[in-house]
This record gives sequence, structure tokens and C-alpha cells, in this order.
Amino acid sequence: MPKTMSAMVLTGHGGPEKLVYYNDFPVPQPGAHDVLIEVSACGLNNTDIKVREAQYAVDFDPNSDLDETSAAASIAATNGETGLSFPRIQGADIVGRIAAVGNKVSQDRVGERVLVDFSIYHAKDTDGSPRMDLSNVDYIGHGADGGFADYVVVPALNAHKIQRNIPDAELATFGCATLTAEHMLSRVSAKSGDKILITGAGGGVGSAAIQLARARGAIPYAVTSRGKEEQILSLGAEACICRQDFTDQSGGFDKDAFLVAVTEATRSNRSVDVVIDQVGGSMFHGLLQALRPDGHYISAGTISGYTPRINLHTVYMAFLNIHGSSQGQPEDFARIVDYIEAGKIGPTLGGIFPLSQLHHAQKTFQAKNYVGNIVVVPDAKWKEFGEPDARR
Amino acid sequence: MPKTMSAMVLTGHGGPEKLVYYNDFPVPQPGAHDVLIEVSACGLNNTDIKVREAQYAVDFDPNSDLDETSAAASIAATNGETGLSFPRIQGADIVGRIAAVGNKVSQDRVGERVLVDFSIYHAKDTDGSPRMDLSNVDYIGHGADGGFADYVVVPALNAHKIQRNIPDAELATFGCATLTAEHMLSRVSAKSGDKILITGAGGGVGSAAIQLARARGAIPYAVTSRGKEEQILSLGAEACICRQDFTDQSGGFDKDAFLVAVTEATRSNRSVDVVIDQVGGSMFHGLLQALRPDGHYISAGTISGYTPRINLHTVYMAFLNIHGSSQGQPEDFARIVDYIEAGKIGPTLGGIFPLSQLHHAQKTFQAKNYVGNIVVVPDAKWKEFGEPDARR
Repeated sequence: MPKTMSAMVLTGHGGPEKLVYYNDFPVPQPGAHDVLIEVSACGLNNTDIKVREAQYAVDFDPNSDLDETSAAASIAATNGETGLSFPRIQGADIVGRIAAVGNKVSQDRVGERVLVDFSIYHAKDTDGSPRMDLSNVDYIGHGADGGFADYVVVPALNAHKIQRNIPDAELATFGCATLTAEHMLSRVSAKSGDKILITGAGGGVGSAAIQLARARGAIPYAVTSRGKEEQILSLGAEACICRQDFTDQSGGFDKDAFLVAVTEATRSNRSVDVVIDQVGGSMFHGLLQALRPDGHYISAGTISGYTPRINLHTVYMAFLNIHGSSQGQPEDFARIVDYIEAGKIGPTLGGIFPLSQLHHAQKTFQAKNYVGNIVVVPDAKWKEFGEPDARR
Repeated sequence: MPKTMSAMVLTGHGGPEKLVYYNDFPVPQPGAHDVLIEVSACGLNNTDIKVREAQYAVDFDPNSDLDETSAAASIAATNGETGLSFPRIQGADIVGRIAAVGNKVSQDRVGERVLVDFSIYHAKDTDGSPRMDLSNVDYIGHGADGGFADYVVVPALNAHKIQRNIPDAELATFGCATLTAEHMLSRVSAKSGDKILITGAGGGVGSAAIQLARARGAIPYAVTSRGKEEQILSLGAEACICRQDFTDQSGGFDKDAFLVAVTEATRSNRSVDVVIDQVGGSMFHGLLQALRPDGHYISAGTISGYTPRINLHTVYMAFLNIHGSSQGQPEDFARIVDYIEAGKIGPTLGGIFPLSQLHHAQKTFQAKNYVGNIVVVPDAKWKEFGEPDARR
């Protein structure tokens, strides 16, 4: 085993310049219950960028005048107390092969190809198994070093063996976004026959939600930008609503046009059972109005602003339910592994880059001109796991 | 049976002047499945006033510039399409004695003292029993004439016999507010040991929620205005938080002071399981922040504004759940009747007026300088059911 490795290391909160590529970073050592994984691919996430910018560190009062989109304001408001220590290797959606195991883990696992559940469950059940305590959950790439490196150490329980024959880079498109989407569907008890309206359908969570909704027999309707319809429909969306159809000249949101489009797509008025939202902002009220009485809205992200106004009158007259969610639970991840093995969900690889080009990969990620997830491959593994699947 | 009666008749949308007192209004006739009730007392509700002002008729876009508190704007925005027809007798919380029955109802019921479930369930189950369809529910005093009169006709199933020995005027404090509060607790599955933070605790829904939370073993914490603490504590509140402690000089809401007060009352930080809210407005964000992770907020009214900003970031990072509710289901009402008969909840009579003085009663109701509900008694019954319990 080498003593040093290549790694993209986050050296502090700030812009991309805080991500520094090292060729001589120490290879981590597995603890008794851990495995050491030789990374072959690692998926990108919005969370990595938001954490770098310290956007999760503060809980803005929406009545205040702070600019909600200013990373600088976010960082300033934290007084340096973000819970993150440096250096830190980010990267949550890890695929690789087990290269070594701790002394409480079976040696038989060496060589297994694995997909990593990135959740760190600090709380334990009475039998010692990890339990999701929502106030006490962290994740790999934040509370511990992640997969933007040649090697990573994770708890053995988090490393799930995958036998289905798909390339490693494609396998790395599952993970954070998939778990987030599955947990959202679970929290609202989405069931067979439900109409599920999914915003940001071209993104990681959105594209996963389309497939996962179908996997449980529900009917997904997608909201996305023009040009992505074909791919979105091929993922399983019943219909595609184009953002351009309800965005006016100045970029504003035309709620009435949106509701007409939803009614046309779902073939009835206010009949949506569940909204899976990653957009928020000016769309928020329209999304609530698309719901049937007693319908469920759930958010795990807010691409277009996170402090919209809420009409409580609408909420109580229509008995609406609004939920927030992030990450997921072990049973959600187990279900995803089953879906992958059974071929019920497939990868959506939006792009692939060498790890050393992470800055460029994140720029592409943020431009959102693709469907699915973007993946990086360690430079040393590029010929084997990157080049064959590279699409740009 | 007399042919005419006294009644306070709503003649159109608008101010109190639209409520006109008649001495020669026709006595209604029961249909086959109905009972005719000789009214002895009828409780007041915010809903009566909001419906008169047509505030429920429109579903404002919170992004618009309309003044949310303007009744005139509400009425103008409806184009006259509010779903209400005139003349209409309002009054939902009816107590009285069955004076006559339809030909499908047992004659034995004549003479029963009853409390009326005001819900009109248009939808029926396959066995013909009423079923709550949230998109198809109405109520007595809106979709049919109510209890601001000497007589009222209601479906026999809605008239619940009450044997507990409490005065009719006190019995009329149960009803709309009680059902609303019980359904809110049901929707969020409030259970024994839960910490329940209740705003507007001096009001009808709030004071009912305190008792109903205790009835299911939960621990209610009240938010109210100074001067009402003693009464609120006697209803069963574990602690009382005074609005004046977190309202600044200019009437603004001091969120940090509020959260400190909640932490002191509940003896730990962000540990509230359920918020039962009737206030909304500038308190909204602070109420969400008082919740534990995966906690539940539920609104059935918004005394201080219904389009606050929501911080979706707070909602998804803390896995929060936000619900709206109004009215309730038959099983909620049945539970309330059981609680009344068992003495688990008691009446909170805030005032009592002759029916002809409804204008004055509603002014008192809106000033909110009392705890519980305000009741009117038909003038012809004042000596028997009003005077003995009159407190002002």
C-alpha cells in the first residue's frame, strides 16, 4: 500500500481556489470496523459546493435583509463556526474496490466492488447498529474525508457490494442525490398511482426521483428546461413541462401559465399528490397550488431562492402538508441497492472528468446543461475508468 | 310550532351592517333525515366574520402586492363569486333541544339536549355514512342556515346528545374551535409526553388545544398576552409565555427573545414536538425554529398575517413538517363528545350576549380581552339560558 496519494483537498471556506490538488497527501488507515477503498469514481454534489461556501452554516431569519445568495455573507455570518475542520477531502458518492479492512471486518471483503452510503450515523440502536437521529447525522466528505482522492476510509457497514454489470463511473451517479430522492418519496409515503410533480428534473435529485417514483409505481411529471425533454421522458417521466413555457421575458415566474401547464400534463386541475421540489423561490406558491387537498410538498433544496413567501391561508384551507428533507436512512439506501441490482433504476451520467480537473467539473455541474450527475475519476485510474465512458 | 322566528340574518358580504335582525323570519322545516332544534345558545367564531368579509373567497398570490388585510380588496377580488348565497343565517356552534324530527328519524329524539357537529359532509361512504372529503366539506352557518336564530334544522347525525350537567351557554363554547383544535392534534399525531407549543392560547382554538393536549397526555405550553396567564394555567398549560416578553417597543416580534422564552419554558433548546398556531405573520419563522428536528407545525388561522416568508433551508435541514387544517372529521367530534361527558375538558365561557346584540358580541370577540369563547342566546331564551351565566 502506498504511503501517499493524490487528493483534491479543501483548505478552507471560500471559492474554488480553496480546493487544492495534492500528489503527496497521506493515505488514510482503516479503524477496526472500517474498510479502505481504492476509489475508481466519485460523484459531484451541490452540497460540496454549498459547504465550501459555508452556506449551510447559518440559519438566516427570512425577515432579515441579508442577501440570501451571498456566499461571502454566509461565511462572514458564521464567525468561523461552521463545524468543518481543514484540511478536508470532500466527495460523497464513492465507488471503488476494497483494498484493505480493519481487524473486526472479514478479510473476504477485500476486492469487493462497492458503492458507499455516505451517511454517518453517530447515534446507535441498542443492538449497536447505526440509527438515523435527525439531529445527529453527518456525511462522508464533511464529517470525515471523502472520495476526491485515490483512497478513502469508510465504516464497513457503509460499503455496499454491487454485482450488477455497469461501469464504475456510471455507478458513481447513484448516491447522495439518489438517497435524497428516495427518502423524500418515503417521507411523503408516495405510493403506486400517485401523481408526483418533480422540479429540477434534469438534476441529480430530480432525475433520480423520476426513476424512483416509477420504481414504486407512481406517475412522475417533470419540470425542466427546454432541450432536456427527450432524456427526461426516457427516464420515465409521464410528461415534461418546460420552464420556458411559464417564464416571462424578464425571467419572472408566470404562476397562472405554470398551473395551466400542470393541469394539461396531469389532465386535471389541482390533482398532484406530491411535489418533489429542488427549486423553491418564486415557483413555491404555484407548486402548492398545483396540489390536491391534503397533498404533500417536500423540499430538499432551493436552486432559485430559499425564502419565498408562504400563503398559510392556502395551506390551511387545502389541508396541505409541507416537508423538508435531506440525506436519508439506511433502509432507503438498502432499497436503492436492491433497485440497482434488479435493474429498476439506471445511471444517468451527465459528464466525467479527471479528479485534478474538479474546478472545471464543478463549473460544468453548476451550468446544469446536462441530465443526471457528473463524476470525477482519480487521474491514475483515468485510462481504466474515465476514458471509456467520457462523453466530453 | 310557530311559523316565524327571530334571526340575525346575513344579507350580503361586507361589514357588521350586513347582519340584520329579523323578528319574522320563517321557521325552517326538517327534511326526512333532519332534526329541528330550538336553539338555547350559539358560539361565535372568527370564521363567521371572515366569511362575512369574503376573506375566504380568494386565494391571494403571496407574491402580489394586494393588501392581505383588506376586506374590501377581498370582496372586490371575488367578483361576487364566493359560494355563499343570501340571505344566510350564520352560527356554527349550536346547543338546543330537539323540537321536531323528520320522518326517517326516531320520535324518541324529541326533547334531547344536543350539541351540533357543524360539518356538512357532502361525500358519503359506501354504507351511506358521511365521509370527510377534504375537497368537499362545508359547514352549518355557511352551506346551510345556522344557529343565530330561535330555530335551526340540521342532519340528525350531526346532533349529539349531551347528558353532562353543564349550562347550555357553557356547552356552546365547544364546537368549531374545539373540533379544529382536536383535528390539528390528530393530524400531527400528537401523543402522550409530546411538548405542544400553542399560540393564541387565550382564543377559542388555543384554549381548546390546551385542554385537548392534556386529554391525550401531552404537555401544552401557551403563548398569550399578559393578564390571561392565570386562566391559561388553570386550563392545564404547563407554562405561559407572554407576548409582551418578545414584542419590542414598536410592536415588532423579537425572535431571539421568543426563542429564549420557549427554551426557558420547555427547559431545553429546540425541543418542541408540535406547534399549534393561530397567529402566523412575523412569529412564523420563530415558531419553526422552536421545533425539534422532524417536528410538526400546524396552522388553522393567521391572526397576524398569512403570507410570512418561509425559510426552506431551515425546513429541509431540520426535516420539519408544516401542515394546514380547518374543521375536522366525525371521529374527532365523537372524541370531543366523549371528553365532555367524561369531564376531561371543560367549558371556557368568555362572555354571553343576547342574539340581538350580535354586533356588540362580535366587537368583544375581536378585541380578545377574554379567554375561551363568546356565546349568544336567543332573546326569547335570555332569562333562562343567558342571564344566569352572564358575566358582563
